[in-house]
Amino acid sequence: MVSRVVFGRGSFNQLSEIIAPKRLNVNAPFIYLVDDVFKGNTWLISRISLAYDDQLIFISVDEEPKTSQVDELVEQIILSHIDRPSGVIGIGGGTILDLAKAVSIMLTNPGESKNYQGWDLVKTPAIYHVGVPTISGTGAEVSRTTVLTGPERKLGINSDYTPFDQVILDPELTKGVPKDQWFYTGMDCYIHCVESLNGTFLNAFSKSYGEKAYDLCVEIFVDGNYTQEEMQDKLMMASWHGGMSIAYSQVGVAHALSYGLGYLLGTKHGVGNCIVFDHLEEFYPEGVALFKKMKDIHGIKIPQGICSQLEDYQFDIMIDVALGLEPLWENALGKNWKQTATREKLRSIYAKM
Amino acid sequence: MVSRVVFGRGSFNQLSEIIAPKRLNVNAPFIYLVDDVFKGNTWLISRISLAYDDQLIFISVDEEPKTSQVDELVEQIILSHIDRPSGVIGIGGGTILDLAKAVSIMLTNPGESKNYQGWDLVKTPAIYHVGVPTISGTGAEVSRTTVLTGPERKLGINSDYTPFDQVILDPELTKGVPKDQWFYTGMDCYIHCVESLNGTFLNAFSKSYGEKAYDLCVEIFVDGNYTQEEMQDKLMMASWHGGMSIAYSQVGVAHALSYGLGYLLGTKHGVGNCIVFDHLEEFYPEGVALFKKMKDIHGIKIPQGICSQLEDYQFDIMIDVALGLEPLWENALGKNWKQTATREKLRSIYAKM
Repeated sequence: MVSRVVFGRGSFNQLSEIIAPKRLNVNAPFIYLVDDVFKGNTWLISRISLAYDDQLIFISVDEEPKTSQVDELVEQIILSHIDRPSGVIGIGGGTILDLAKAVSIMLTNPGESKNYQGWDLVKTPAIYHVGVPTISGTGAEVSRTTVLTGPERKLGINSDYTPFDQVILDPELTKGVPKDQWFYTGMDCYIHCVESLNGTFLNAFSKSYGEKAYDLCVEIFVDGNYTQEEMQDKLMMASWHGGMSIAYSQVGVAHALSYGLGYLLGTKHGVGNCIVFDHLEEFYPEGVALFKKMKDIHGIKIPQGICSQLEDYQFDIMIDVALGLEPLWENALGKNWKQTATREKLRSIYAKM
Repeated sequence: MVSRVVFGRGSFNQLSEIIAPKRLNVNAPFIYLVDDVFKGNTWLISRISLAYDDQLIFISVDEEPKTSQVDELVEQIILSHIDRPSGVIGIGGGTILDLAKAVSIMLTNPGESKNYQGWDLVKTPAIYHVGVPTISGTGAEVSRTTVLTGPERKLGINSDYTPFDQVILDPELTKGVPKDQWFYTGMDCYIHCVESLNGTFLNAFSKSYGEKAYDLCVEIFVDGNYTQEEMQDKLMMASWHGGMSIAYSQVGVAHALSYGLGYLLGTKHGVGNCIVFDHLEEFYPEGVALFKKMKDIHGIKIPQGICSQLEDYQFDIMIDVALGLEPLWENALGKNWKQTATREKLRSIYAKM
């Protein structure tokens, strides 16, 4: 689990003070990976104090994070500095947070990051890494995975060394998020929770976290009688609890199918989950009904027809990726999941999107 | 925060496997501090596998943990072994868990434990320590404090090094708890939450944890439509979330007054909180009303008249201890708490107990 966390509006100002004792020496820099949406945003950037060889790298999040991207970043960091970094600080949404986790792992583990996609393949502790979410919902700030698209599959590096050593939860940082992105990313949390709470892997630990995140999502996206600040605070905590819930259980059908979309079409995770979940009444009737209601309340139009021009071999690729995520299917449908989750069934669902 | 946690019925069986990689060498033992209620309980004790110089110490929990007790345990451990221990494992309720945390800190920090009562006075990381709760409610398994009665005060060692490195949440271990103790300890959690949720220090982080713990307490102690196993699972999670809530906020009037009782009379924390809370309608009207309802539902008789024979100087001692806990009062009543929490007011409340 995340070892340390601070929470509060303005808590981002504590970053320098928090990481200072972790500086190993003047040649061992802090590396900041920052969503490039903040390029030129002095309100945020001026609060990052670079010293010695510290490096700030802006990263586009137009695409989902890739293993090749992780390997390039690691190489770039190693070649640019005398010593191994003192730490990696990710400032952004799920993409940036996952990259920060993966880079911190790959700075101490040999080979390529694709070799660590899976469960508990990381043998050496990562370097110190800090997560600062600037959008809420993915749970990447608290999870023990970092989801990467590799040459062969979209799959996380799940390990005890993946979680951040420190997280800074400053809800004020989420203030500029565009509405559709706010909705899609919030729905990532909501969909996590529906999958976790309806899964066969559920235990009382994950259930209590999942229920709290679910309740907060309903307060935010259905009730909505809150100030902007309260909504930001609540969604940041929903993301946290939702992430905790799936850290000790598992996601399900929506995430499996969404990974297929992401792998083939590069569909971003948040919107991909929404596109998929919209067609999963069969698996999550109550969850999907409430999702449709939330969509209406907020006037969100989910992209349609993204699979309408695909060819057979492309459907097959998505189906292969989705079915490869066995723990997700087993969580959703139990040990005999293969009887329900047939290739034909998946094809028919993808064809609606 | 706690770095690692496992949850589940029977998860206690994983203890040996979890701690094995943490053994430093054959002369560096694991020290098990175990509630002496488990003496002769082969169901539990047979699952602790002692190797090399590992030592199992049974501890009576008739009294609240003391700084002198911590110092004696540390001395005994140091004198009995060649190397510093590989780790300390506490198996029991709040008293045992607090002792395990304090001993693990004092094995690496010089001087007496009374010198560390307060906030952030610990400078050296503790040795590896594991918490295994066998009764639910105190939140000691997750908190960043270890409450000790010292020569001058009852106050916790609050530090970043206090939380356990590993917690094993096995609800099955709570199956033999007597009903009144189950109620008192569960109410410790409930009262935490009322204090935290009504406090001025509350933020959205603590609120979300406090609300979940509160909801679980209501399910357990009011609704009650659950199997014995579900109740055990839920109460273990209520304790966890309640502990998380106060770790990042603060308790209030009930704990302040209860610490006074504990210091003077040695009143155990759980029952002490109940004795106090029963008379706090003025501060927590809704919380106390629901508490009285829960008491009735479960037919619990709170001890009466424990202060009836006390002399003036004894009331003064309790009042001094209680008023010394300034953060608790400020959380409960705000910056001007001294206007409300007068010596006369406290005397009048203590006089009712």
